[in-house]
Amino acid sequence: MKEPRFLIVADGAFGPETSKTADCAIRYVPERVAAVLDTSQAGRTAQDVLGFGGAIPVVGSLEEGLARRPTALLIGIAPRGGRLPDAWRGWIASALDRGLDVWSGLHTLLGDDADLAARAKASGAVIHDLRRPPANLPVSNGRARSLDALVVLTVGTDCNSGKMTAQLELLRGLEARGVRTRFVPTGQTGILIAGWGIAVDAVAADFVGGAAEQMVLEAAPGADVVLVEGQGSLIHPGYSGVTLGLLHGSCPAAMILCHKVSRRRVGEYHPGEAWIEIPPLADVVRVYEQAAGWIHPARVIGVALNTYDLAEAEARAAVARAARATGVPATDPVRFGPAPLVDAIVGAAARRRAARMTPSA
Amino acid sequence: MKEPRFLIVADGAFGPETSKTADCAIRYVPERVAAVLDTSQAGRTAQDVLGFGGAIPVVGSLEEGLARRPTALLIGIAPRGGRLPDAWRGWIASALDRGLDVWSGLHTLLGDDADLAARAKASGAVIHDLRRPPANLPVSNGRARSLDALVVLTVGTDCNSGKMTAQLELLRGLEARGVRTRFVPTGQTGILIAGWGIAVDAVAADFVGGAAEQMVLEAAPGADVVLVEGQGSLIHPGYSGVTLGLLHGSCPAAMILCHKVSRRRVGEYHPGEAWIEIPPLADVVRVYEQAAGWIHPARVIGVALNTYDLAEAEARAAVARAARATGVPATDPVRFGPAPLVDAIVGAAARRRAARMTPSA
Repeated sequence: MKEPRFLIVADGAFGPETSKTADCAIRYVPERVAAVLDTSQAGRTAQDVLGFGGAIPVVGSLEEGLARRPTALLIGIAPRGGRLPDAWRGWIASALDRGLDVWSGLHTLLGDDADLAARAKASGAVIHDLRRPPANLPVSNGRARSLDALVVLTVGTDCNSGKMTAQLELLRGLEARGVRTRFVPTGQTGILIAGWGIAVDAVAADFVGGAAEQMVLEAAPGADVVLVEGQGSLIHPGYSGVTLGLLHGSCPAAMILCHKVSRRRVGEYHPGEAWIEIPPLADVVRVYEQAAGWIHPARVIGVALNTYDLAEAEARAAVARAARATGVPATDPVRFGPAPLVDAIVGAAARRRAARMTPSA
Repeated sequence: MKEPRFLIVADGAFGPETSKTADCAIRYVPERVAAVLDTSQAGRTAQDVLGFGGAIPVVGSLEEGLARRPTALLIGIAPRGGRLPDAWRGWIASALDRGLDVWSGLHTLLGDDADLAARAKASGAVIHDLRRPPANLPVSNGRARSLDALVVLTVGTDCNSGKMTAQLELLRGLEARGVRTRFVPTGQTGILIAGWGIAVDAVAADFVGGAAEQMVLEAAPGADVVLVEGQGSLIHPGYSGVTLGLLHGSCPAAMILCHKVSRRRVGEYHPGEAWIEIPPLADVVRVYEQAAGWIHPARVIGVALNTYDLAEAEARAAVARAARATGVPATDPVRFGPAPLVDAIVGAAARRRAARMTPSA
């Protein structure tokens, strides 16, 4: 497949915390991004808005965006519940009419929309629904618990706290050390970047664990480390079930706890709806270790902080505080590099290898 | 809608632990059951196989079943993963051809099968997919936590341990005491019996909590007590995500822990696949109270045991042991009646009412 060149739709929402899919595409595959459509920020650049992404322009209309010669439209937000804002339908229809493919991670599957499907068929465009669940998923049963590879899951104090980003930084860091590493994408953005995976939040609920298990079993052969993209949070009142299914299906031996330092309440990026205070990190570590232990023991071996909105001194202090509070290495892997977490994973993988070579008593 | 009269298909699987939907239909709506199709047990009665259900006959062929003049075929098993055994397809097709409706709780939605849908259309039969998810579910956000009604969720040490049955027995017991009580069905069998509900294990995983929340909010007005049918188990390696989503979406204040006394391992009704030992009941109580508390505190206020396969003295001893171990009332609600649990719920509801009438400091 020829690599797409995206016009990313993030209207009214392009920003460091409100357009996760757009932001991650710009961070990890910028060569595929032609422009971002946000009528409220036309004339700015990705760099202006996000602090990275260079000269990628923000445009104020579909026409302007098309002038940048994209080959595909990418829905660049992951709205609450994952549904399509009605206003966007017109842009999608126009794009399909002109033969642009559409990539979407919405729960509303665009390919199942009769009107949009007909337009795609007429122009030869393809609709890629990143959240379309595959058929015939298994029910998980701990089959991933005894692999040779070290399975590492990112877990969080909330959604949107850096669980996918941490894994992509760790992937880069581990590969640079020569560790054979596979990344397992479990959400639409990870799938977009990696080119495979299952959006576990969109499968029928009975199969969340099974989807995770199947991917881990597929990724593990020949790998020293399998990095599983985490989802949601056990303390999130809407998505905790997905998080637990993913935890029990992927059967990690190690977890990296992700936290956005400036956030005080779960989901406070949805104004007025946040009511759960995020507990101290050490308490959250205990929550995840307890929950993992109901099925298979796993330890939190590191903390990945998201500090993009803090001054550097504050960020460094937060890293030191997190390490002290939890007793494990901490870093902001984007800002300060993933080295302390890479070290922790390399160590855990070596200990696992040694333990598996020693016949148990 | 005229009440259906079911020929229940439970081929090779009719029994007290292997055909939950069939068994519950026979226990709670026997007047709707014409016969059970199980080629391996033709000639027996429901009473012979289950110990209840009287003269309802087990037949060995579709023709024999049709001779009992059913108006509908009911799929009477909930197989692992909820998919359709290939061999049953022929019976379903024949039934539809003859104009019988088909009721199914399988994950495989029969109405989406082009061949079966065409047959139904041709004969005027209707396919009822009990697990078909509704559109436009919300994401849960603890909206059920501050209702006037006492929300009671059944939770379990495993699947298939009596969580729906306990609620139906409690419904009967509470209504007999004049308590205004609503039952919220969350699985295909509960929906079949109650005539409404959502199979939360079949909705897209992001919406498990939202489906539960929506149903509780719908059931609560005018009720003193809302009894929510539990699903799965937090210590089940395949279904724990559904259980946690249901717990955090329904926001119970009280839980009833359900346990089949003779079961030692989670899922041991699937021979060869069970590897998790069921911990002592007091430990399981702690697991559920911890997990509830991540979002909203809830206490286990009673234990419902399933002792059908034990001698009476053993069963009574198990009830006494469970009460002692957990410090809350216990009973086998089917065998010994639900009174101790009804008392516990009435007391908890009264305390909730009193607390809500006292202005908090």
